[in-house]
Amino acid sequence: MEIGIIGLGKMGYNLALNMKDKGHKVVAYNKTPDKTKDAENEGIIGAYNLEELVKKLSKRRVIWLMVPAGEIVDELIEELAPLLDEHDIIIDGGNSYYKDSIRRHALLKSRGIDFLDAGTSGGMEGARYGVCTMIGGDEEVFRFVEPIFRDISVENGYLYTGKAGSGHFVKMIHNGIEYGMMQAIAEGFEILEKSQFDLDFKEVARVWNHGSVIRGWLMELTEKAFEKDPKLDGIKGVMFSSGEGLWTVQEALSLKVPAPVITESLYMRYRSEMEDTFSGKVVAALRNEFGGHKVVKK
Amino acid sequence: MEIGIIGLGKMGYNLALNMKDKGHKVVAYNKTPDKTKDAENEGIIGAYNLEELVKKLSKRRVIWLMVPAGEIVDELIEELAPLLDEHDIIIDGGNSYYKDSIRRHALLKSRGIDFLDAGTSGGMEGARYGVCTMIGGDEEVFRFVEPIFRDISVENGYLYTGKAGSGHFVKMIHNGIEYGMMQAIAEGFEILEKSQFDLDFKEVARVWNHGSVIRGWLMELTEKAFEKDPKLDGIKGVMFSSGEGLWTVQEALSLKVPAPVITESLYMRYRSEMEDTFSGKVVAALRNEFGGHKVVKK
Amino acid sequence: MEIGIIGLGKMGYNLALNMKDKGHKVVAYNKTPDKTKDAENEGIIGAYNLEELVKKLSKRRVIWLMVPAGEIVDELIEELAPLLDEHDIIIDGGNSYYKDSIRRHALLKSRGIDFLDAGTSGGMEGARYGVCTMIGGDEEVFRFVEPIFRDISVENGYLYTGKAGSGHFVKMIHNGIEYGMMQAIAEGFEILEKSQFDLDFKEVARVWNHGSVIRGWLMELTEKAFEKDPKLDGIKGVMFSSGEGLWTVQEALSLKVPAPVITESLYMRYRSEMEDTFSGKVVAALRNEFGGHKVVKK
Amino acid sequence: MEIGIIGLGKMGYNLALNMKDKGHKVVAYNKTPDKTKDAENEGIIGAYNLEELVKKLSKRRVIWLMVPAGEIVDELIEELAPLLDEHDIIIDGGNSYYKDSIRRHALLKSRGIDFLDAGTSGGMEGARYGVCTMIGGDEEVFRFVEPIFRDISVENGYLYTGKAGSGHFVKMIHNGIEYGMMQAIAEGFEILEKSQFDLDFKEVARVWNHGSVIRGWLMELTEKAFEKDPKLDGIKGVMFSSGEGLWTVQEALSLKVPAPVITESLYMRYRSEMEDTFSGKVVAALRNEFGGHKVVKK
Repeated sequence: MEIGIIGLGKMGYNLALNMKDKGHKVVAYNKTPDKTKDAENEGIIGAYNLEELVKKLSKRRVIWLMVPAGEIVDELIEELAPLLDEHDIIIDGGNSYYKDSIRRHALLKSRGIDFLDAGTSGGMEGARYGVCTMIGGDEEVFRFVEPIFRDISVENGYLYTGKAGSGHFVKMIHNGIEYGMMQAIAEGFEILEKSQFDLDFKEVARVWNHGSVIRGWLMELTEKAFEKDPKLDGIKGVMFSSGEGLWTVQEALSLKVPAPVITESLYMRYRSEMEDTFSGKVVAALRNEFGGHKVVKK
Repeated sequence: MEIGIIGLGKMGYNLALNMKDKGHKVVAYNKTPDKTKDAENEGIIGAYNLEELVKKLSKRRVIWLMVPAGEIVDELIEELAPLLDEHDIIIDGGNSYYKDSIRRHALLKSRGIDFLDAGTSGGMEGARYGVCTMIGGDEEVFRFVEPIFRDISVENGYLYTGKAGSGHFVKMIHNGIEYGMMQAIAEGFEILEKSQFDLDFKEVARVWNHGSVIRGWLMELTEKAFEKDPKLDGIKGVMFSSGEGLWTVQEALSLKVPAPVITESLYMRYRSEMEDTFSGKVVAALRNEFGGHKVVKK
Repeated sequence: MEIGIIGLGKMGYNLALNMKDKGHKVVAYNKTPDKTKDAENEGIIGAYNLEELVKKLSKRRVIWLMVPAGEIVDELIEELAPLLDEHDIIIDGGNSYYKDSIRRHALLKSRGIDFLDAGTSGGMEGARYGVCTMIGGDEEVFRFVEPIFRDISVENGYLYTGKAGSGHFVKMIHNGIEYGMMQAIAEGFEILEKSQFDLDFKEVARVWNHGSVIRGWLMELTEKAFEKDPKLDGIKGVMFSSGEGLWTVQEALSLKVPAPVITESLYMRYRSEMEDTFSGKVVAALRNEFGGHKVVKK
Repeated sequence: MEIGIIGLGKMGYNLALNMKDKGHKVVAYNKTPDKTKDAENEGIIGAYNLEELVKKLSKRRVIWLMVPAGEIVDELIEELAPLLDEHDIIIDGGNSYYKDSIRRHALLKSRGIDFLDAGTSGGMEGARYGVCTMIGGDEEVFRFVEPIFRDISVENGYLYTGKAGSGHFVKMIHNGIEYGMMQAIAEGFEILEKSQFDLDFKEVARVWNHGSVIRGWLMELTEKAFEKDPKLDGIKGVMFSSGEGLWTVQEALSLKVPAPVITESLYMRYRSEMEDTFSGKVVAALRNEFGGHKVVKK
């Protein structure tokens, strides 16, 4: 098939190569032209503006957006839609909030343009050699582009999840689970680290990857991380987050689902970005007030 | 009555004065003699070793221990017991672990000496002018010393809680609740602090102390703390803990009682004592492994 | 002063009586007329529709809304605004979401009408005999109605918190803290209940109310509750919630404030409304899959 | 090699078969003889008391205990030790508490008998076809029996973790992580279940197992579980626990490691075993006291 791709960041660039390797004609556009040039060197057709991208694609056009979630997606759609013909297809392959995808689907439908929301998981390596995709939107539209999803995903690694928004929703929950799993692994290793035993963390992760109940890709990455830096001495424990964990917790709250594990994972990330807390000051001040307990002065 | 007091720290010293004010004959001993001297200047009878303390008391002696929880209590009891006569009474007024109190009660009973475990709450001011006490042990023994508890406590502020250990147990739970309440207050103020509103925290605490659902002594102390330092700029948010919170959580675990609030309060205290976490490094390293996400280098 | 009150529910009715007792002329309207009749019997002036209410008040009119949060407030304002004159004042004394209050303040301002958001705490008894109020909005407007706030509140029990929305915001946080405090108390009593000791919970709450660190109104209410039903045998542990706890958690999330205690309090409430959980089934099924562990069949 | 195995439960029976398949001479004893008979039918040498088991093994004997954690292990060791010769080896392959293993290692050493603590993971299928083992104890002893560990484990699936106790310690942490991971997965699926989307959970688990970040054995088991019962309608969400999660949390507490995720996983399990909570009653009663809020009567 032919596919246009907008956004050649870490994920988009690797996906473009992946698509090309599978025999698709890939036309790529990126805000800054150097990435497009790189892509051209890899056999991808470059486009230096949206008009060019659209022109280089045959109808029924398929355009994959791989840009950061948020207003930028709306802006792109606003620019792109007037250039498209009826039933051309926009696929949002980024980490957009599922309610935005529902809204965009409806908006584009009213303008005759088709829209799919595709959550993708698997990291950069997955993007390059085989990703996992969850796709929401109208089924007919999905069926039209299914060959692309089949080709870029690992075997058995794509799923049509149903109506608009469901692809990004399922991906969001996937990330929420990921937060909880990672924090669980992290707490376990911190207890190991503080224990009386002298353990080789890389070896522990290695053995857990062979036959244990908790084996899986995250544990394999844990093994890799400890292989590179056995005690993680080179980095600080600051855990950033990019939205899906927060959205998952917000969803849990609004559905009245107790989700303490995913929530605490998020809170520990927030805490890690803070040097000090006001709440800590309040407790310290209170302890001092009633018991004369020691306070750490600044 | 006559009462011997061992340990003239913040709490013990104030309690001794409180007892004396109520007309009791107080004999006090402290490891370092300067505190004893101070007490003598306040009209308390000083003793410079345990023998002296015991000799200065008439039988049925009543001796109140006010020392840090742990081995020091066992050592003191070991030293003190041989000097005592049958049915003399040792009261442990400190924050001992209730299982230690059950053990000590049994041990002393086998040697003919009576033992009460008395949890005391109210801070230094309470110790001085009216404390809250929860007393466990044999009821006959409690009745004998009840006048002292009545006098040192605020009106209605003492309770015989039942068999040995129950006094310290009830006090332990009191402190567990205190952890949760303080953390709740602290979280609330941190949200206020991070909010878009420009609030005078002292005034907020003040208004909440007048008619609101959450009025209480902790909120009064919050008001006082903000009165002294409106934004708590002078201190760091390091929250120490002295054992009862931990014991409460351990108790919850062994009784299979879900106690997320008290437990999280404790974890946030532990977290506040750490500059960085190993768990944070693990999560940061994992995010970097799968998504190439930014890591803060050391 | 003269004041119109709309909504004679538990809180509104008591507030109306409170205002009347302090010498204000109170005109009251309620959707169902029987409540209005009751109020008339208590010396309050009844109104049977909004026009009547407005007509019975002199300018600069002050109208206090005491209705459930949500669309009903918007509908009332929509109906009421056309009947009012410039700079008449609407006070929303309910538990509205602070962002709604900011929006309503702006909307009404554009139509020449003044608006205050007043969070009130203290329960029904407080509403009747002395409440705690936190008021946001334009300061001039607040100063105009300050006498009413002074009169209905306990001494020192009202605070002008600043710009529009801040009154409901501070009240929201108050309720979030309340969630955490209540859960802390509840966890403590559950540990007491499951313990080896045979405790009289009412007496424990009583002693904690006299001199302890955790004394306060909530502990007084705990004492009262146990006085009526010593083991709470008559009720089920279903904990409903009405919004402010959820909003507080949502606020914490969006401000990146770790608030585990308030959040867990909310989750335990949600959990208490569920007979069974899907998450529990997933874990049970997984344990069965890998270890052949027992599963409870339906 | 020759190996005696005591305990033919789910894990022990499969391990015995596994060892036999790899060419080891396996002598098995079980408290109830029918299991031993079954084993004999599979080519394993049966023993009907400990003496017989010991006699049927050549020196340096290796005896693997596969019995429930707790006193039963101590009793077995007490019975077994007098029958053994110097430097015979007892391996505890069960889920014993690591501090017990440290104690047992020391006790047996003083009696000339060697001891290894071996944590095993992988479920029944793992026990049968390839397990994951973590082994603590004296290195010389480990090296002597290493062939057995190599044979029964999947390739790369065993690790000598160091001094006595470390094998069970690492296994304990493994289980703690497992608790957190399972709860994370479970929360995610509960949000999916409560969502507006109509999802096939088995398909979601399936796609997540192909290329996603959270792929792993637990997700594969999730897929299997939903394959058998698409909505888990047949079971209740009661989550039992068998000790290692609790021990992990206790360890976190004593090492002052914030471990909210593992802890909340445990609390949600405890909560799932309760029909109602006393803490819920306390909160419900308090809400009723201050606000007249609805209470569910029994």
